[in-house]
Amino acid sequence: MFPREEYQLRMNKTKQKMLEYGVEVLVLSNPSNLCYLTGYNAWSFYVHQVVLVLIDEEEPIWIGREMDAHSARTTTWLDQRRIIPYPDEFVQSTIRHPMDFVANILTDLGQGQRKIGVEMDAFYYTAMCHERITYGLPDAEFKNTSTIVNWVRVIKSDEEIRYMRKAAKIVENAMQSAYDTVNVGVRENDVAAAIYHAQVSGTKEFGGDYTSIVPMLPTGKNTASPHLTWTDRKYVEGDFLTLEIAGCYQRYHTPLARTMSLGKAPESVREVGKVVTEGIRETLAQMKPGVTAEQVEEVWRTSIGKHGFIKASRLGYSIGLSYPPDWGEHTISFRKGDRSLLEPGMTFHLMPGIWFDDFGVEITESVLITDSGVETLTSFTRDVFEKPL
Amino acid sequence: MFPREEYQLRMNKTKQKMLEYGVEVLVLSNPSNLCYLTGYNAWSFYVHQVVLVLIDEEEPIWIGREMDAHSARTTTWLDQRRIIPYPDEFVQSTIRHPMDFVANILTDLGQGQRKIGVEMDAFYYTAMCHERITYGLPDAEFKNTSTIVNWVRVIKSDEEIRYMRKAAKIVENAMQSAYDTVNVGVRENDVAAAIYHAQVSGTKEFGGDYTSIVPMLPTGKNTASPHLTWTDRKYVEGDFLTLEIAGCYQRYHTPLARTMSLGKAPESVREVGKVVTEGIRETLAQMKPGVTAEQVEEVWRTSIGKHGFIKASRLGYSIGLSYPPDWGEHTISFRKGDRSLLEPGMTFHLMPGIWFDDFGVEITESVLITDSGVETLTSFTRDVFEKPL
Repeated sequence: MFPREEYQLRMNKTKQKMLEYGVEVLVLSNPSNLCYLTGYNAWSFYVHQVVLVLIDEEEPIWIGREMDAHSARTTTWLDQRRIIPYPDEFVQSTIRHPMDFVANILTDLGQGQRKIGVEMDAFYYTAMCHERITYGLPDAEFKNTSTIVNWVRVIKSDEEIRYMRKAAKIVENAMQSAYDTVNVGVRENDVAAAIYHAQVSGTKEFGGDYTSIVPMLPTGKNTASPHLTWTDRKYVEGDFLTLEIAGCYQRYHTPLARTMSLGKAPESVREVGKVVTEGIRETLAQMKPGVTAEQVEEVWRTSIGKHGFIKASRLGYSIGLSYPPDWGEHTISFRKGDRSLLEPGMTFHLMPGIWFDDFGVEITESVLITDSGVETLTSFTRDVFEKPL
Repeated sequence: MFPREEYQLRMNKTKQKMLEYGVEVLVLSNPSNLCYLTGYNAWSFYVHQVVLVLIDEEEPIWIGREMDAHSARTTTWLDQRRIIPYPDEFVQSTIRHPMDFVANILTDLGQGQRKIGVEMDAFYYTAMCHERITYGLPDAEFKNTSTIVNWVRVIKSDEEIRYMRKAAKIVENAMQSAYDTVNVGVRENDVAAAIYHAQVSGTKEFGGDYTSIVPMLPTGKNTASPHLTWTDRKYVEGDFLTLEIAGCYQRYHTPLARTMSLGKAPESVREVGKVVTEGIRETLAQMKPGVTAEQVEEVWRTSIGKHGFIKASRLGYSIGLSYPPDWGEHTISFRKGDRSLLEPGMTFHLMPGIWFDDFGVEITESVLITDSGVETLTSFTRDVFEKPL
């Protein structure tokens, strides 16, 4: 996927953080972190699998299901001997757990008495994983290093940014495809199908990958619930909807959301749409290296506050490489209290949406922090789109 | 989604199991279990959310992110007062955790000293979830009830079976669409795009839902790695591939896998294909109520053993309602040691595949156990498909 040197740099940055956190071994479960450090890419995270980083060894170690070791050999930069499969009898068993196997491997490798970092709040590091590994390594000392690799991922390399620009092209096509397909008498699921087709077809030059979140396209009152997917209801004149989707190129995501209506938009939607787009312009104008995440949110809050609006949820979050169920990196959030400094090479989903009890407007941008300011990754008109009928 | 009576029956069955396990409160994190008991359906499981079952109360309680409470009001049968949102400051914070909030609610409800069952190995019940809830409820006694609701889900109602039959129609269409699209010069991702389009379009009568696993379509040597997704490589004459996909109707899944080639299949693929289809026939002939899961696997093992083949991984698993990243129910597996009895209304993905170091053949069926035997949910020819060029 990436040149070996890029993986080695990622490993070195990870080890530097391990020293900061005071751990000698990392047990990683987050599929995005597995992929980031090794290249591993397969839909196998529904069984337990880990990547180990030992502070004194150059290459990580992959441990997973026997059936998936082939995928590890195909997709990673690791030496064959660093790929360790566990037998199928460990899969979803009430008697054996894959973390028993991992604990034994760590013992065999002489790591049983070290300081071990685990991702306490990562999606696939279950309570049982932690129970079994701590039981299996009674002499080790465990620390929570939930987002240690996530923080390494925050600043993108030039190559990663190229991937995200490709994802941007894909999401522009997918959004256009949604705009073209929505119509009176068309079912919501048919619009979702058109979006999927565009996302995965990609462009003539490169194919698209699956996105970590499915297309979300609530209609009418349901726009107040931004995480509803779709039904097979047919659109009628006067419907309005929010569309939140992403393009994905080799696991790198560029999300984009827009709001549209079938025919003229309700006055309330138009009005909120204008407040949101003005807020985006004012916020983007202030984003540059050295500004904090909470300052970004403050610009937005002030902007919409002038019109009497508030938004309770965060204004956005760091994005890049990811696996389901989320395309956020779980590091920087634009909200009060987050004092992270913006740096060149960071990428965010700036998520200005305003939701009320009975409707919502969502218009977003994926952005890259440059040396002197900010750049949007996609180029797609922000106005509420009124589909001519 | 389902009539209120069906949810009440599901709750009663769950409470019966709670008595067996000796717990008075359930804290559920598995999105499939949330949906099964309440109807809750939104792509929000990337933040922590739970459903509580109290043994002495009729309705469950939903706790989730403020932004998602609207979805809970829209999709569940619960009284408004049983929907409890937590503020956005709990989302992906290093200071606050949603389980702190859940623990406080349980205390307020007078449940702080009870026996509480948690899903120790469910995907979204992280080690941190368990740490925070046990910290917040020091006087409660915690028990692992990882699959307590999963086991209630094992036997499907007539209405659930109707959903799976609809999903079966969708997957037949999607597989046909893949057969039609694959061709020399076509890219793998374009076939994936056609599959997605068919899955989500569904039929004229009903729309399709997203599947819990993405289409997997490894080609050539990569067929040895069943969980690889796709690339943008173009197919060439002589390629062969395995396709594992599902249809989904309102979260109910019917998976199906087939093997195909562009032009004549290699002799080895043809030969293994025949062994697998013979094995399926012989296995299906023995499946009926009262047979154990391990006996089903034994029939298969004996059948392919006659030809000198072995399969290390399990032969299949229980299916039905599900959310990413898996469409399996994590209960019954067809493998040695699983003595679960087949019963009418159970549904399985019978997964006969044989994988070698350099290729694999996968031909599967989704099946329903009937009063007297077994029935395949789909009707799609099993032979290795040789695409005419």
